[in-house]
Amino acid sequence: MTVIEDLIAALGADKVLTGESIGERYRSDASMTGRFLPLAVLRPSSVEDVSIALKICDRHRQPVVPQGGLTGLAGGANARSGDIALSLEHLSGIEQIDTAAATMTVLAGTPLEVAQRAAEERGFLVPIDLGARGSCQIGGNLATNAGGIRVIRHGVTRDNVLGLEAVLADGTVLSSLNRMTKNNTGYDLRQLFIGSEGTLGIITRVVLRLRPLPTARLTALCALETYGDVVSLLNSAQRDLPGLSAFEAMWESYFRFNAEALKLAFFDRTPPFTVIIEEDVAGSDVDRERFEAFLGKAFEDGLLADALIAQSEKEARAFWSVREGHLMDQLLPGLVNLDVSVPIGQLGDFAVDCETALRTRFPAAHVSFFGHVGDSNLHVAVWIDAAGEHDLHEIDAIAYALVRQYQGSISAEHGIGTLKRDFLDHSRSEAEINVMRRIKAALDPNAILNPAKVIPPEA
Amino acid sequence: MTVIEDLIAALGADKVLTGESIGERYRSDASMTGRFLPLAVLRPSSVEDVSIALKICDRHRQPVVPQGGLTGLAGGANARSGDIALSLEHLSGIEQIDTAAATMTVLAGTPLEVAQRAAEERGFLVPIDLGARGSCQIGGNLATNAGGIRVIRHGVTRDNVLGLEAVLADGTVLSSLNRMTKNNTGYDLRQLFIGSEGTLGIITRVVLRLRPLPTARLTALCALETYGDVVSLLNSAQRDLPGLSAFEAMWESYFRFNAEALKLAFFDRTPPFTVIIEEDVAGSDVDRERFEAFLGKAFEDGLLADALIAQSEKEARAFWSVREGHLMDQLLPGLVNLDVSVPIGQLGDFAVDCETALRTRFPAAHVSFFGHVGDSNLHVAVWIDAAGEHDLHEIDAIAYALVRQYQGSISAEHGIGTLKRDFLDHSRSEAEINVMRRIKAALDPNAILNPAKVIPPEA
Repeated sequence: MTVIEDLIAALGADKVLTGESIGERYRSDASMTGRFLPLAVLRPSSVEDVSIALKICDRHRQPVVPQGGLTGLAGGANARSGDIALSLEHLSGIEQIDTAAATMTVLAGTPLEVAQRAAEERGFLVPIDLGARGSCQIGGNLATNAGGIRVIRHGVTRDNVLGLEAVLADGTVLSSLNRMTKNNTGYDLRQLFIGSEGTLGIITRVVLRLRPLPTARLTALCALETYGDVVSLLNSAQRDLPGLSAFEAMWESYFRFNAEALKLAFFDRTPPFTVIIEEDVAGSDVDRERFEAFLGKAFEDGLLADALIAQSEKEARAFWSVREGHLMDQLLPGLVNLDVSVPIGQLGDFAVDCETALRTRFPAAHVSFFGHVGDSNLHVAVWIDAAGEHDLHEIDAIAYALVRQYQGSISAEHGIGTLKRDFLDHSRSEAEINVMRRIKAALDPNAILNPAKVIPPEA
Repeated sequence: MTVIEDLIAALGADKVLTGESIGERYRSDASMTGRFLPLAVLRPSSVEDVSIALKICDRHRQPVVPQGGLTGLAGGANARSGDIALSLEHLSGIEQIDTAAATMTVLAGTPLEVAQRAAEERGFLVPIDLGARGSCQIGGNLATNAGGIRVIRHGVTRDNVLGLEAVLADGTVLSSLNRMTKNNTGYDLRQLFIGSEGTLGIITRVVLRLRPLPTARLTALCALETYGDVVSLLNSAQRDLPGLSAFEAMWESYFRFNAEALKLAFFDRTPPFTVIIEEDVAGSDVDRERFEAFLGKAFEDGLLADALIAQSEKEARAFWSVREGHLMDQLLPGLVNLDVSVPIGQLGDFAVDCETALRTRFPAAHVSFFGHVGDSNLHVAVWIDAAGEHDLHEIDAIAYALVRQYQGSISAEHGIGTLKRDFLDHSRSEAEINVMRRIKAALDPNAILNPAKVIPPEA
């Protein structure tokens, strides 16, 4: 029997899409770089289904690509010709909310926003949040160790997971559904699967750590003159604002472009650096006074040139609309958004060097910067009129060479997938990549799980 | 040449203690269960020394036991007959403090307290803290994923490490000295070494995440009637006190014993539960008012029977002296301190069941409970007059059987080492233990690193 015949016999035909029934959406993640429709799309509705499917594929040495909400940007969920996709979309639902322990157990295919709403109804916050919340799935958030905008307060995804269950390549169901903060009983297998992009196992269940739901949020838009002032303001905010939940910096050209596109004016002139500061608070006057006092002191200390405090939800949203920069994507079609990390103190120098290097090669390029500075995370927006594939690769090569020089990370939050795989050695040593290979071989000896992703082939 | 001759030839005789020159202290960690002096004690003074030493030992198939400050409680650093110990004591020092990024790079043998002081001098907090701070070493804190008393605010050790360097069994130096919050470039090797108790590699360098130094601390001692009230108070504190840094509960018999021993009286009668709440604050009147308002509201809501706010550092220390219970160890020689986790909502029931089970077998036992409730972590203090080795094993067996039933952890913060190894299957499944074995074999194929620790032998 072929692998497809075996799968249909074991799972039933309704869980195995083939041929015409495979929708176009299974071709690619949000990077839109996927070229092939999968040979088949498996849609298990139980953990047992996942186990059966992998056991069969392993026996047939059949490559399997796990797919979640397909919102990734690194090509990590794209099938090669002949790969089978395993979609978690039918393995969805919230299994338990433990209000005493502040934990939530969910199936991996649950959309992030569904989990967020369920937590909110019980007075809790799911500490993971990102723009794709409506379509991305918890399992994919773990597989890619998603970052997002609230990391400065609650950490990245791996910091908010207490336990998980994953199915190994041979069908073994590995349950590590820990619900406790302290648990020192052997190796932390959980963290091995988080961020491994489906190459070591398929995550099926997750125990999330919940946080108290903040009742109010204070937002300020701050104008600063130098990157050194940005770092000083960050350090003060981390010391004096216990609920600091966002610290987002925009470099001059990014802020100007997006404010003009949105027809919004906040300051007399565009400052060299604009920072959004947000604090989650209980909502008392005391909190607001402290927030105002913090900004007042920063102004006195000469860190701030100007600052606006949002007087309404609408005003806060206006600040964020510049930061989100959705019009930039529309006005500059084909805009490239690089996602890198560099130690916080050097982000300013890195941005200068990066702009210089890119403009040396592409004098007409539009280059701008914004980022989650508190997380060392910089996004570089690059646009070249009518850029071809070769140009895109050159942009990567120029930026990532600098990242290597700064001992930074070529992927702060987007992961490696296929698109950054051949640059992995810019951020990880040969010894590290070799250990990754050994772990991969130990857990997936037939190399069926998301092959050719993350780890480059041996030279 | 013998392995010792090879080591002396490569490292120099001053780095290789043998025979009479091996001090008694290398025999055991703080559990005092070590039986053998090591065959030799290696004291490398550079990462290169560690690499050379392991390469030689690997070639000779010579077991190596890493030793830090020897403050562990699970026998994880004890040598068997013929094992060589590798002490990190001469690989000590702070290499860098990056104030912009709030990170510190230290050598693994640096005592925790030395790192804490260096950070404080620059206005930062090392978020790891535990009683043994004066003698324990950073490398050992990572190897055991140390917990401690500030976990509720800053997490366990693994939450406060950005990067590390480890030497593998074959001498490979694996540098993952990341200094950034967001870095999604392949597998998180760092978390694999943290908590692996020296069985996968020897940690040589660490990048710690620093936090702002709190300028003041508010402390309250609260009397409560039921465990349900303890959980409700915890949930309110997590919501309303943004700087909550300790939430320590003492069950009635624990509080009574230690308060009486210390001749301290706080309440008219000993309450069923006493909780120490601490908040780290900036030190303004506003913070103190909010803290008082929080306790006032909890009293109105019927959660608190009584509460005292420390009016001085001395008074706060008096609260803590009961919690630390040092006199208990003196007055009840041979006191057993079990360290377990159970989901927060069930800790109360677990304590009742545990006391019943222990007293059924040992009617005269003194059983009391205290713990870091916010971290699901309960300590069980058990004393039996003139307990023999068999009794101690029976206490373990009774308590851990209950932990298994509650799906808890047999080791919240002390690790597995040798003393809990044969109970590992009470908290981890056969599939999980099997994956641990595969990872161990992949990284240390000759099984020279801390053999016979953590992972039980195959049946």
